Amino acid sequence: MKENIDKLLSNIAIMEPPLGLQDKLALARQENRKLTIKLGFDPTAPDLHLGHAVVLQKLKDFQDEGHRIVVIIGDFTAGIGDPTGRNKLRPPLTPEQINKNSQTYINQLAKVINIENIEIRKNSEWFNNMPFSNVIKLISKITLAQIMHRDDFKTRFESKAPVHLHEIIYPILQGYDSVMIDADIELGGTDQLFNNLVGRTLQEAYEKKGQIVITMPLLEGLDGIEKMSKSKNNYIGLTDNANDMYGKVMSIPDSVIINYLTLATDMEAEKQSAIVSQLELGLNPMKIKKDIAYNIVKRYHDDISAKEATEHFERVVQKRTPEEADHDVLILPKGSYITLLDLCSVALPAISRSELRRLIRSGAVRVDKSKEDDEIKNIEVIPGTLIWIGKRYKFRIGS
Amino acid sequence: MKENIDKLLSNIAIMEPPLGLQDKLALARQENRKLTIKLGFDPTAPDLHLGHAVVLQKLKDFQDEGHRIVVIIGDFTAGIGDPTGRNKLRPPLTPEQINKNSQTYINQLAKVINIENIEIRKNSEWFNNMPFSNVIKLISKITLAQIMHRDDFKTRFESKAPVHLHEIIYPILQGYDSVMIDADIELGGTDQLFNNLVGRTLQEAYEKKGQIVITMPLLEGLDGIEKMSKSKNNYIGLTDNANDMYGKVMSIPDSVIINYLTLATDMEAEKQSAIVSQLELGLNPMKIKKDIAYNIVKRYHDDISAKEATEHFERVVQKRTPEEADHDVLILPKGSYITLLDLCSVALPAISRSELRRLIRSGAVRVDKSKEDDEIKNIEVIPGTLIWIGKRYKFRIGS
Repeated sequence: MKENIDKLLSNIAIMEPPLGLQDKLALARQENRKLTIKLGFDPTAPDLHLGHAVVLQKLKDFQDEGHRIVVIIGDFTAGIGDPTGRNKLRPPLTPEQINKNSQTYINQLAKVINIENIEIRKNSEWFNNMPFSNVIKLISKITLAQIMHRDDFKTRFESKAPVHLHEIIYPILQGYDSVMIDADIELGGTDQLFNNLVGRTLQEAYEKKGQIVITMPLLEGLDGIEKMSKSKNNYIGLTDNANDMYGKVMSIPDSVIINYLTLATDMEAEKQSAIVSQLELGLNPMKIKKDIAYNIVKRYHDDISAKEATEHFERVVQKRTPEEADHDVLILPKGSYITLLDLCSVALPAISRSELRRLIRSGAVRVDKSKEDDEIKNIEVIPGTLIWIGKRYKFRIGS
Repeated sequence: MKENIDKLLSNIAIMEPPLGLQDKLALARQENRKLTIKLGFDPTAPDLHLGHAVVLQKLKDFQDEGHRIVVIIGDFTAGIGDPTGRNKLRPPLTPEQINKNSQTYINQLAKVINIENIEIRKNSEWFNNMPFSNVIKLISKITLAQIMHRDDFKTRFESKAPVHLHEIIYPILQGYDSVMIDADIELGGTDQLFNNLVGRTLQEAYEKKGQIVITMPLLEGLDGIEKMSKSKNNYIGLTDNANDMYGKVMSIPDSVIINYLTLATDMEAEKQSAIVSQLELGLNPMKIKKDIAYNIVKRYHDDISAKEATEHFERVVQKRTPEEADHDVLILPKGSYITLLDLCSVALPAISRSELRRLIRSGAVRVDKSKEDDEIKNIEVIPGTLIWIGKRYKFRIGS
């Protein structure tokens, strides 16, 4: 079991309670059953991106272990929308829109998990005909203080921004879904921690075993700073075409390469470790991003698409001739000057300057195919300039 | 119209908005209709006391003017009770209990208003089958900040005492009753100001004219300090028997005589003014309380009962012989001594001490039937001692 639990525990941001998963697995073994893993879906936002896929990957980890996967479609509240009309992003949806969005969602889900053996439940099943008296009993299980633990309510309340009362009811509905399906575990992003803990509280209030809440890290968007989201337009959609997907991955800043590697690819742990080492050794990040982009495109499309997207990127975005296709790109301030030794050192930071000096003096370095053996010669930074160091390393100054 | 509006405005503690009644009356005239006056009733507490009657009297004032009276029986929430079980005073009631309590309530209502032409509505009529989706639309009309204006929620929240979410829903239900019956005015005690203003807010949210909220002062209980309430056991119940009712009124401290006079009797305004003047002139409060007690017993029982209760009080409580029945009682520290002049001055504070001295010296004062003409003689305070001043004033030291 050791290896499996390592996989299940991988990448988790917060688990509440902290040893909950181990306990649930022990319980399941004891009761000779599989765990019920819940994932909620809001049909007002059916388009999934790599940020969502971090959670879906964890769902897949559980599915791979044979656990029961239940996806809850929050159609009840989607059908109501925002009754105040303030939130334009939440108009009430018709049953047709909800069905369409749910199908869109499931199609995207199929890109990560096997949708053949999952259960899909709509929560209108238990809410549409819930008598008002039961609503009151339900909400009585939760106190105002518990609700005010949620940061956004607290902040808005304290800053005198209106919090309409239906908003404080919505997390309770989501939590009640866990009661209805007897969830053992609920998955979500870290931004769902509060909501999903309400489920645990409610299960206990209804004298059931409380679910554990596993939250996954929020993947940064293309800007490398904000969390990936559709509204910020910094996302890579699961249905983006292969070229867009590849190009978007290539555009991420170096600071988030490791997060994309660990959270967005399905590379084996060993391969990930190897890449992290390369990065630490100073391998050109461009090369690593290409590995990541390739993996992601292959994952959401296929191998051929990934190859074609790579070629497209190199041809159109990097503007290489076929001859230059195997050159790594160096990004330097255009129009500035840099000594040959510094240039080589930027290109190969893992190689010592004395070794590079030796290589230059030995005539192993060429700039635009001409041999250069003066390590202090100033080279103008002109996009397209080729720098070859020995037979193995080929670089091109990027545009 | 002038006189009528004075009567309608009498005794009001808070009216919101402040000139609301005048505006509503003008509107009713313009639309050639009567106003709808709402009073809510909680069937968990069917026993009414003089504190409730302050509000009922105002209801009667409106009824006397021909307005439409609607009593709302809050049977929906009474049937649910306190789902947390924390509040032992709010167990869920069966429909039979609710019906029984409602009948008890209406019987008591009949002691103040004419119940023949009032409407009685149960709010289960609109809540029992309210779909959850409409519940959400309803509560979305109210913000957390509005709810937190209610002092007890705010205080409890800030002191970290639990506020369960159903509690913050209950005022909204009460408010929705106003929407359903198109209330123009809601009556209540000052402790209902917040709840009843929710009704106004909701009516406006449902694009109706907002009701005005009229709150009546809270009558002090027999202790003269706390508001009258069953839980404090300081109340005079509308169904108390005549002797108890009379005796309880006689036990109130002088400090609240005027409040009982104005809020609990149905004396004409002129008579009330006359009594207030007597009180200011120093007339023995005992005499005034007897007038008030007589009026109240007559009101909730009848004239004969009031007379009998007076006699009972004098015979049993004041322990008078028939001969002493017309004596006013002086309450003084038992076993102490007081000069004859001081004694007369306590008995008749409105008469100057020089006039009293003149009366004593002229032989017009008798103590236990013996003439006493020495104004500085010390008289021992012994219950039952009779003091006569002239032919007109007869006092007895009380026990």
